[in-house]
Amino acid sequence: MDLERFAKRRRKLIRSLKQQGVDALLVTDFTNVTYLTGFSGDDSYLLIGPQQTVLISDSRYTIQIGEECPDIDAHFRTNRVPIMEATGKLLRKAKPSKLAVESESLTVAELEELSKQAKSQEIVPLSGLVETLREIKDAAEIASIREAVRMAEQGFAVIRASLVGRMSELEAAHELEHSMRKFGATRAGFDPIVAVGARAALPHAHPSKVTMETDDFVLFDWGAETADGYRSDLTRVLVTGKISTKLEKIYRVVLKAQLRGIKAIRPGSKGCDVDKAARSVIEKAGYGKRFGHGLGHGIGLKIHEGGRFSPTSETILKPGMVMTVEPGIYIPGWGGVRIEDDILVTRDGHEVLTSVPKEFEQAVIR
Amino acid sequence: MDLERFAKRRRKLIRSLKQQGVDALLVTDFTNVTYLTGFSGDDSYLLIGPQQTVLISDSRYTIQIGEECPDIDAHFRTNRVPIMEATGKLLRKAKPSKLAVESESLTVAELEELSKQAKSQEIVPLSGLVETLREIKDAAEIASIREAVRMAEQGFAVIRASLVGRMSELEAAHELEHSMRKFGATRAGFDPIVAVGARAALPHAHPSKVTMETDDFVLFDWGAETADGYRSDLTRVLVTGKISTKLEKIYRVVLKAQLRGIKAIRPGSKGCDVDKAARSVIEKAGYGKRFGHGLGHGIGLKIHEGGRFSPTSETILKPGMVMTVEPGIYIPGWGGVRIEDDILVTRDGHEVLTSVPKEFEQAVIR
Repeated sequence: MDLERFAKRRRKLIRSLKQQGVDALLVTDFTNVTYLTGFSGDDSYLLIGPQQTVLISDSRYTIQIGEECPDIDAHFRTNRVPIMEATGKLLRKAKPSKLAVESESLTVAELEELSKQAKSQEIVPLSGLVETLREIKDAAEIASIREAVRMAEQGFAVIRASLVGRMSELEAAHELEHSMRKFGATRAGFDPIVAVGARAALPHAHPSKVTMETDDFVLFDWGAETADGYRSDLTRVLVTGKISTKLEKIYRVVLKAQLRGIKAIRPGSKGCDVDKAARSVIEKAGYGKRFGHGLGHGIGLKIHEGGRFSPTSETILKPGMVMTVEPGIYIPGWGGVRIEDDILVTRDGHEVLTSVPKEFEQAVIR
Repeated sequence: MDLERFAKRRRKLIRSLKQQGVDALLVTDFTNVTYLTGFSGDDSYLLIGPQQTVLISDSRYTIQIGEECPDIDAHFRTNRVPIMEATGKLLRKAKPSKLAVESESLTVAELEELSKQAKSQEIVPLSGLVETLREIKDAAEIASIREAVRMAEQGFAVIRASLVGRMSELEAAHELEHSMRKFGATRAGFDPIVAVGARAALPHAHPSKVTMETDDFVLFDWGAETADGYRSDLTRVLVTGKISTKLEKIYRVVLKAQLRGIKAIRPGSKGCDVDKAARSVIEKAGYGKRFGHGLGHGIGLKIHEGGRFSPTSETILKPGMVMTVEPGIYIPGWGGVRIEDDILVTRDGHEVLTSVPKEFEQAVIR
């Protein structure tokens, strides 16, 4: 067990707390707690600062915390003591004079309760402290994302080989998740999108009872989640029926745009410039208004993490970021094509982590 | 499409807003938005009050909202306008002088942004307004929960028939979800618990690679989710190996406690009294300290809804509530037994919605 990588994250966070001029942070976002400690359970907060770091959990998790993060002080409440009450007790002992809270996850009711509990402290709502650290993946995280990619790709190979005309979007989505689990995934990284023909014009279509044979192509947007919570995110279009000129043309534009976007990825690049590299290909082909979303986003413990490719993105790429590149062209009533891969920013450029074939010829099922 | 049932819920909510002395409520919990409108998508708020009700969504959902809730005014923002900005614009037009917000779901950052947007309004954080309505299920909701029970029971029958010694907890959990989906479920109602022998002593065990043949019994805690989002929640223990006197004794105590708890369910009963009816059986048998959680909770669009059976519960049962009854005895190092069913409170008593056999003899796999 590599505890040092979690300790390193906590040291980085403590440095940024000092820069912010606060004495401690109460981490209430469970994903952030996992990121900072390695503890994979729920319902637990982390009080962290230069003076003291303590995990506030409950008696269900005693054994698990002893196994997953033996290097961290833990306080176990009984089920008669609400978590905010337990937190208040610790705060009154630790007495940080300026306590930061995570404004993007703490609810209004929780802040109210915390303010009641923590009488003498000044409470400072801050946002993005841990999320900013999470943008840069360390070696273990990159290995986990590679695992999530492998599970997604193996699962997809099975479903691609199993496609038949009478299979519905729903059946395909469920079989895909089931396959990924057989290859080791805990679950799908998000609800898979399986959209036949015209339904692919909706970027967030829910799988329905529509069958593959209803149209000539189908869009899959899917990913896997590993046991330690990391995710992959891919999109491919498969041609299941006859090859139309329109489909081929749009497909080739999207692919060209995607390759240009990927090519623009290197340390120091700006998110808006990567977006532009891809978007300008689509615009020049006359489909600019048919690409209504951003080019990509960070992935990790959540399927949407910090880091954005969009026309207004201020993201500056750094080694260790893992980003999706997913341009699309959507024509209402006809359908849509989107192609998506996961890209690691490296010291001297980038590495494409995903490897499902994407040339138009390879999208055609014979 | 029965739009009237959603309209009825909104009318009830508006009455309770008047009682609270506020002019409107901004509903930000997506489950509550679904409950009040029938709209099954995400990322949308509902501004509701006696003067005006408007769904604040975005251009991805134009078609879906037209289909699912044609009776509601909707405002569709483009992806360049953040949802709080769109909300602010509407508020400056509608000018409710006292605006309630949902303090249990609105984050501190969202409230800050809303306050900036909604200059002249007084903002009142309230909790539980919609959740209280959700405690009482209407006929359509009860029908959906019956569906969720059917899916869970059919899926379980398949996995029960498929159990073999070399199957792991993880495989069983994944096969169970896959089976429920074949019977129409969108997904499992929550991550299923499959815990062999000693692992069943942890009330929230995660399925592992431990196989069925490792011990003599296995605990399943599972449920299904319907297409419209309603859930079921059951627990059974199956005896896969040799029958020990200890297991049989504990099983019979838990079953007796569960039946006593169920018997105490009728309109007007208090949550703590139902808990006591079951708990006293376990205490008399000498296992009082081995039953560390509450007896049950409400189910519906979430797996844990309002309504509690616990030693301190103030819940007063009303017709239309659907509650779990799930006593357990947990012995560290040996294992645990829990038996759980879903119970509808009726006008003159109750109805047990679940029907998986639970006599000890029926728990034994031959």
